[in-house]
Amino acid sequence: MVRDNFVKESIYPLHEWNIIEENFDVETNYLDETIFSLGNGYIGMRGNFEEGYNGPSDTSVEGTYLNGFYETHPIKYGEPAFGYAKNGQTMLNVTNSKIIKLYIDDEEFNMFSGNLVSYKRILSMKKGTLTRDVIWESPKGKKVNIKIKRFISLANKHLASINYEVVPLNFSGKITIASALDGDVKNLQTENDPRVGSALEHQPLTLEDKFLSDSLGIIVQKTPNTKFTLVCGMENELKTTCNFSKENKEIEQRVENKYIIDATEGEKIVLNKYITYYTSRDYLDDELIPKAKETLTIARKKGFEKNLQEHIEILNKFWEHADVEIKGDKALQQGIRFNEFHLLQSVGKDGKTNIAAKGLTGQGYEGHYFWDTEVYIFPFFLYNYPKIARKLLEYRYSILDSARKRAREMAHKKGALYPWRTIAGEECSAYYPAGTAQYHINADIIYAVKKYIEVTEDMDFLLKYGAEMVFETARLWADLGSYIPKKGNKFCIDSVTGPDEYTAIVNNNFYTNYMAKMNLEFGYDVANLLKDKYLDVYNRIKEKINLEEDEIYEWKKAADNMYLPYDEELDIYPQDDNFLEKPVWDFENTPKENYPLLLHYHPLVIYRHQVCKQPDVLLAMYLYSDEFTKEVKKKNYDYYEPVTTHDSSLSTCVFSILASEIGYNDKAYKYFMHTARIDLDNYHNNSQHGVHTACMGGTWMSVVNGFAGMRVEKGQLKFNPYLPNNWDGYRFRIMFKGRRVEVNVDRENVTYKLLDGKPINFKHGSKSISLTDDEMVKVPIEHN
Amino acid sequence: MVRDNFVKESIYPLHEWNIIEENFDVETNYLDETIFSLGNGYIGMRGNFEEGYNGPSDTSVEGTYLNGFYETHPIKYGEPAFGYAKNGQTMLNVTNSKIIKLYIDDEEFNMFSGNLVSYKRILSMKKGTLTRDVIWESPKGKKVNIKIKRFISLANKHLASINYEVVPLNFSGKITIASALDGDVKNLQTENDPRVGSALEHQPLTLEDKFLSDSLGIIVQKTPNTKFTLVCGMENELKTTCNFSKENKEIEQRVENKYIIDATEGEKIVLNKYITYYTSRDYLDDELIPKAKETLTIARKKGFEKNLQEHIEILNKFWEHADVEIKGDKALQQGIRFNEFHLLQSVGKDGKTNIAAKGLTGQGYEGHYFWDTEVYIFPFFLYNYPKIARKLLEYRYSILDSARKRAREMAHKKGALYPWRTIAGEECSAYYPAGTAQYHINADIIYAVKKYIEVTEDMDFLLKYGAEMVFETARLWADLGSYIPKKGNKFCIDSVTGPDEYTAIVNNNFYTNYMAKMNLEFGYDVANLLKDKYLDVYNRIKEKINLEEDEIYEWKKAADNMYLPYDEELDIYPQDDNFLEKPVWDFENTPKENYPLLLHYHPLVIYRHQVCKQPDVLLAMYLYSDEFTKEVKKKNYDYYEPVTTHDSSLSTCVFSILASEIGYNDKAYKYFMHTARIDLDNYHNNSQHGVHTACMGGTWMSVVNGFAGMRVEKGQLKFNPYLPNNWDGYRFRIMFKGRRVEVNVDRENVTYKLLDGKPINFKHGSKSISLTDDEMVKVPIEHN
Repeated sequence: MVRDNFVKESIYPLHEWNIIEENFDVETNYLDETIFSLGNGYIGMRGNFEEGYNGPSDTSVEGTYLNGFYETHPIKYGEPAFGYAKNGQTMLNVTNSKIIKLYIDDEEFNMFSGNLVSYKRILSMKKGTLTRDVIWESPKGKKVNIKIKRFISLANKHLASINYEVVPLNFSGKITIASALDGDVKNLQTENDPRVGSALEHQPLTLEDKFLSDSLGIIVQKTPNTKFTLVCGMENELKTTCNFSKENKEIEQRVENKYIIDATEGEKIVLNKYITYYTSRDYLDDELIPKAKETLTIARKKGFEKNLQEHIEILNKFWEHADVEIKGDKALQQGIRFNEFHLLQSVGKDGKTNIAAKGLTGQGYEGHYFWDTEVYIFPFFLYNYPKIARKLLEYRYSILDSARKRAREMAHKKGALYPWRTIAGEECSAYYPAGTAQYHINADIIYAVKKYIEVTEDMDFLLKYGAEMVFETARLWADLGSYIPKKGNKFCIDSVTGPDEYTAIVNNNFYTNYMAKMNLEFGYDVANLLKDKYLDVYNRIKEKINLEEDEIYEWKKAADNMYLPYDEELDIYPQDDNFLEKPVWDFENTPKENYPLLLHYHPLVIYRHQVCKQPDVLLAMYLYSDEFTKEVKKKNYDYYEPVTTHDSSLSTCVFSILASEIGYNDKAYKYFMHTARIDLDNYHNNSQHGVHTACMGGTWMSVVNGFAGMRVEKGQLKFNPYLPNNWDGYRFRIMFKGRRVEVNVDRENVTYKLLDGKPINFKHGSKSISLTDDEMVKVPIEHN
Repeated sequence: MVRDNFVKESIYPLHEWNIIEENFDVETNYLDETIFSLGNGYIGMRGNFEEGYNGPSDTSVEGTYLNGFYETHPIKYGEPAFGYAKNGQTMLNVTNSKIIKLYIDDEEFNMFSGNLVSYKRILSMKKGTLTRDVIWESPKGKKVNIKIKRFISLANKHLASINYEVVPLNFSGKITIASALDGDVKNLQTENDPRVGSALEHQPLTLEDKFLSDSLGIIVQKTPNTKFTLVCGMENELKTTCNFSKENKEIEQRVENKYIIDATEGEKIVLNKYITYYTSRDYLDDELIPKAKETLTIARKKGFEKNLQEHIEILNKFWEHADVEIKGDKALQQGIRFNEFHLLQSVGKDGKTNIAAKGLTGQGYEGHYFWDTEVYIFPFFLYNYPKIARKLLEYRYSILDSARKRAREMAHKKGALYPWRTIAGEECSAYYPAGTAQYHINADIIYAVKKYIEVTEDMDFLLKYGAEMVFETARLWADLGSYIPKKGNKFCIDSVTGPDEYTAIVNNNFYTNYMAKMNLEFGYDVANLLKDKYLDVYNRIKEKINLEEDEIYEWKKAADNMYLPYDEELDIYPQDDNFLEKPVWDFENTPKENYPLLLHYHPLVIYRHQVCKQPDVLLAMYLYSDEFTKEVKKKNYDYYEPVTTHDSSLSTCVFSILASEIGYNDKAYKYFMHTARIDLDNYHNNSQHGVHTACMGGTWMSVVNGFAGMRVEKGQLKFNPYLPNNWDGYRFRIMFKGRRVEVNVDRENVTYKLLDGKPINFKHGSKSISLTDDEMVKVPIEHN
């Protein structure tokens, strides 16, 4: 069902490279804070104002996050049961380092007092900066021009910086600038919507120590349960020709450098603030303060501009690789760039962290990592930044032990069961029917491993990490399923939940069984490959995990005999054994305001009906595109689309891609619109709690896999591009087996170009195309 | 599966009318406190010692409960969702009134100091008293004989009393007796087993007021959330020929009357303590203290013995009606009497309260009322005390409004959905898959209503209460189910949980569908009866609940088209649409200590297998005995028995009854043994947290419906008795349509006798029997 609200008017002016806010508006502030977030995959800061926020408390959340830095808390259950996830992990809102307060004599600057003569805020996606340019007239009539620029360095993950400029416009006199760190922070509480905040109830950070000198401030804190140490430091550098004095202030968890300046009308005063974060998740406790000091010293020595340039250089390279140009549609151009920019801002690149459902922009879903990474986000990195893609998979290897432990808790004698949601590896889902029951995450991860190997040919990864993950997950499936006489002795998987969370704890979920089959098969194939070519590696793993030779054949047998539900009458694949035996949801009598259903109906009411939150069978058909004909896809699409609400932000991109493939071009475009601008246009009315990273990854897929029809099937690259009616053209580049290929689609032609690497063969529709050095091949577009 | 631990050695000596404890044992104390509980359906007291308990804290729980007196608390969810039960209700542990402390000079009596020369405790089921007779030698060598008798009056629900007698055996000197009320009480916390305690975290009672005079003490308290007022009062009466002085002490929530006696060797000192409880659930706040004082004044005027006699008279009548005599098996005789006694002690008789899963003996399941009442306990009262049976149903009528509200929360446009567990009507289940999803409770209640009308012919109940309940529940079923094309357009019910909690959220649970069919049919029949004979009542209800004429025909249509799963190959009724498609639980490799499974396996692991906690299909076959042939019952029994763990205490009685019916006499006996002595022999290892009232009701059913084969089918009474091999005979009486019939079974004959009421016809096997006044009919027993 394509819902009416799928086309919305943007609240930000359309611009290809910038997000611009021309007026300050309390009504949109909560959302703006998300949209204007900055991050570098490690540090994330919401677009909060440096001076703080004096508006209503429900229109703002102050937020600074460090990827992978978390506190635990016992999960509370009204009725506990065996094997329930015991502890929640919550990405913390950490020490607020953005604070710069400004006083004109005794009048404190904020957006709610005096007179805002002019206001402009720009998020530059090209430069990775957030700038604010304000002319403010104080209640007593003093005017200042304030220009603030901040960035979080992509060149040094521990560094952020703010350049704060003040010019008195109509007076000379006292101006005070106070730059602070404030460690008295809290996490947002969950309330009734689990997608909002966290269940953490205690104060997440306790003060261990603090230091303050004339320009340097450091706060050392500890998390009570996880016992992590956090060091947050700032170095302040005032640049002015005016006279000034300094004051240092320490109160409780706060340190502050204050500059009292004898300002002259028209003369610029600049404060450069360098910020750093270090935690004991990366370094030993003893190293943290020296590291922080070192980072700040070097940063100050380089100066704001030099640091910024280094940051921009990284970003330039990123856009060179990842930019998707859309010609003739500013809204979508802006949307896709915004999404790619946020993916980069959110992604952990150290093999110990990953990418949270809301990135580093909010506390929704507690900063947890889900299957979103592998199925929705991973492809973007795989085809643009395969090194980052590897790091995402290395993260999964790093939590393999936790997954083994979880498998034992779930009564599996062998294998590993990846947590549905986690930060550090422990299962954190407090509602198992749409959590632990989603066993498919195991295969989702292996799907990404398989694709990674296919696209990068990085055998080193397979041998060091991948093979062990593949074997342990294959084992789990073998233990989970069974050969059921009533199902013709096929291998069946009972009591799991598929991707569609509006149907829970079912038997033979099509997606799960399909993916498990692949996982089992891949286990068998990898085992054989290793036995054949890397026997020492095979033996090492075999010994490590006590793998029996028989097991490998059991995997193959289970894969070969996997039960896949099929309905003859409708000629479609039922989502599970019982899906088609339920009444269809009464969409006609469901008022608009009752979406998303999960906020208006008890789970049982939802589960009782044919209604999908997101694609399930269709997702399998997208992931295994070559194993289903276009006709089959169309039939299934036609069945499932009318019963899908897209209440999940993971839905529309897959519908867009499949719609492209089966020639529903209008639908493909509409779904893409929604996908690409989910946060900018706040389609789900919850972007204030953070961006939707999976959907952002889905945007890229909708173009590359959808409109351009890219697939990799049995190691072979394929394209099948078309141009949406509203566009003049689009262009993107991908990395594939070490090559970099540009694809440029306009009204008449598709132009392929090899930018880098050895010659390459691929398919355009049914045509074979070969590209060598710098060559360009132009193919006329086929209109379907 | 009949497990090995089904025969256990009793820790209490076998005695037909008493439970006796001959030695005090710390190891069994926690259990003893449950076993020696007293109650009158309103007040309940665990068998705690008057002087308190100095043993390890995990071997005792101090407990005093008032049926229906509860506090609420928000239920905590790791991930909340729409429609979840919001508030828990917890039966409170109230002001402790049992306290009587004894000091021999400066030495305080308790069971852990000095020397316990002799000890005996007796629960007399004939007299409803708990007595303790102790000779204690103090550390300094002073000996006293202490005799304590207490009862909770069945003649006055607000009264309890303790008769405390001390005789100094080898000394004259100071003896102090201190009688107190202590309002500083707490509820037991749930820990990891939801069957243990409650999730209430706050102090449940706050002090409002207290009074203390020379013999009278009163404490007034309030519950913070429910705002109920509780008044607990005591009147102390010292009887001694020795000189004594008095002291009154008030500390915080405690009031105490202290008697310092100049005791003489060999001279008896007696303290009679009269205790009363009143709450604002029964009376206005202003009335509570006067009521309490009045009760105490009258009680003291009558004296301990007179009060006790009034209590015993009620009990005598009870046994006259309810006693089941078992000849030749002391263990089972003791077991069944213990169970009946506790049923009487637990049952609320005011139409506002009901019977909790653990009666008034512990805090397990938070004192909630479940379907246990209607399906397992109700028959005992129906055939022995129909007036109490009516009160139990009136309770359900009293919460009908809550059930309507709950139905709306669960998206049902019409009808009422009874809460799975509650005290005052609000749904309190914090785990909906084995809570709210158990929709069958609606039909269970209506089943009891139907049986009640059938057995008592009490039309007054039907017209005042029953019909409205029947209509509102029928409506719910009509709204819940739908005609499913894939199921031949039969009426199907999806996403519910049947009685078996080891299988959750299934489609077309056989039991649920079967019971719903009855509920719908009965709705149609009652509507027609009313239209026919009580049109004014019909119109009143119709108007009240906005009943449309069409609805009645929809009920009939749904009932006629109800889908009932049937498996041709096995010729059995599958528990639900998918039960037979799951692998059978690996019983062989499940260690004994892993039972009950729910404490050792994640719910998903259990749900994934063919394994039952309790009967489901078989329960329907027992409840609708005449609708299934013996052969069908046998086939289904043979299938389900091997996959049933009896981890629920609601399991064995049904197996015993069906085993009786199909001629598995040994099994019937073994299951009965377990049923009858579940608490005395602590088969589930959790009787310390309270008795199992449903199983207690099941004991009576196992004899009357099982061994004696009693059924009521279409208003016709039937028997089909046999005598278990180990017995010499058994005898019971039942009430049926105003008649009282005695059934006496010995090795050769069954003797029927009409004790009361008009002539009656019934069946013995296929024989028709007529009984008139005082007549006796002897029928030779048939051995099958």
